[in-house]
Amino acid sequence: MIAPSLRVALLVLGLSAGFASAETLPLPAGLVGAATTDGEALLIGAEARAAYFPLADQFVTQKTQSFCGVASMVMVLNAAGVPAPTVPEYEPYRTFTQDNLLDARTDAVVPRETILRQGMTLDQLGGVLALQPLDVTVKHAGDDSLDAFRTAARDHLAQPGQFVLVNYLRKALGQQTGGHISPLAAYDAEADRFLILDVARYKYPPVWVTASDLFAAMNTPDRDNGGRTRGYVLISRKTAN
Amino acid sequence: MIAPSLRVALLVLGLSAGFASAETLPLPAGLVGAATTDGEALLIGAEARAAYFPLADQFVTQKTQSFCGVASMVMVLNAAGVPAPTVPEYEPYRTFTQDNLLDARTDAVVPRETILRQGMTLDQLGGVLALQPLDVTVKHAGDDSLDAFRTAARDHLAQPGQFVLVNYLRKALGQQTGGHISPLAAYDAEADRFLILDVARYKYPPVWVTASDLFAAMNTPDRDNGGRTRGYVLISRKTAN
Ligand SMILES: [Ca+2]
Ligand SMILES: [Ca+2]
Ligand SMILES: [Ca+2]
Ligand SMILES: [Ca+2]
Repeated sequence: MIAPSLRVALLVLGLSAGFASAETLPLPAGLVGAATTDGEALLIGAEARAAYFPLADQFVTQKTQSFCGVASMVMVLNAAGVPAPTVPEYEPYRTFTQDNLLDARTDAVVPRETILRQGMTLDQLGGVLALQPLDVTVKHAGDDSLDAFRTAARDHLAQPGQFVLVNYLRKALGQQTGGHISPLAAYDAEADRFLILDVARYKYPPVWVTASDLFAAMNTPDRDNGGRTRGYVLISRKTAN
Repeated sequence: MIAPSLRVALLVLGLSAGFASAETLPLPAGLVGAATTDGEALLIGAEARAAYFPLADQFVTQKTQSFCGVASMVMVLNAAGVPAPTVPEYEPYRTFTQDNLLDARTDAVVPRETILRQGMTLDQLGGVLALQPLDVTVKHAGDDSLDAFRTAARDHLAQPGQFVLVNYLRKALGQQTGGHISPLAAYDAEADRFLILDVARYKYPPVWVTASDLFAAMNTPDRDNGGRTRGYVLISRKTAN
């Protein structure tokens, strides 16, 4: 991924690609950090990036180590401009936060104490999102294909008001270690890579991952979901009609 | 700022430039939202944007309406890779948050109860940052010039490991209303505009502002600072030597 001329320039300047993320874990060789020279070039040249700017404006860190799904939904709801609840600290302004998204209605899909203990499954994620004014489609990787995923995710990331969440096994990407949920934000065709805005910002930076590596990491069984495979959620703001 | 052909395209497609930020306040005519078609084009074509990606990866919302300075420092400290304190929820990982940045040492510069009541002045911001392993230069707009600000800020935003915080009066930009602090992230030469990553994300999106409008909004007296003008802080990670 790194052009030889860029490698030389980085060496000459004495710059480390990891400069901006000294506190996070090192990335495995297959992943490209978003804030590296290569990561910047991928975003600038990305064929599908309508989702990137609204999501970057709403990037949050999951508030506990099991809240990746909640943080990911907060980003999408704010980026999609879904009418938001109030926040005492911000009156009279309104926004979704990891403290005001969950309520009695979401408890009926997955109780808050379950999320705090073990996080959310793909189906629970889709179920909570479906309570909002959004069109939501849940896809398990085991019922899908790499080509179908690539096409659907790319098309969603290219259109305003459309978003994609992914549920994948970190270990399959060479990261530490368990199931995880985060938004996708962009797709570059030449590299065949998607940008994951990883909500565990204390642990890993956002990364560009190949479509095939990401699909393989989604095509893993989740024992918290009866052994069904992980996968992705396609989300569109409901159009008035 | 919006090319006529883009305006027509937006009308034809029926898209609203405010789509992605339905809950925030409308922007005055002089400001360009970062997630609009024009804002995206400005970032893609920006001459100085080394600061953008590390800061975007660390974008946070100020936790109370007086914590703009604290949120801005957290973004810069994490983006600069300054060794961070622990966070109980994230053990064993470490990161700066709006809950762990302030301590007895910062209380000696500005007490936490003062920040909670009325926020921070430019000089207090510089004083707190100077406690970290950073080179910090505070500039009051009244002692400076538009040209000197533009040159210094642009040069900082173009270099990895360098950052700029601005302290300005919102009302002077046509926003509501008081003194505010946020990081700059990029500069575009043709438009002569800087990108402000506004940490009051519940209230306004990130905006591109002309250098002259921003300088005028910094060149305003702050009664909390003895009537001295607002201004900016130039920040560089200290180099080992
Ligand atoms: Ca491309
Ligand atoms: Ca799990
Ligand atoms: Ca330019
Ligand atoms: Ca004040």
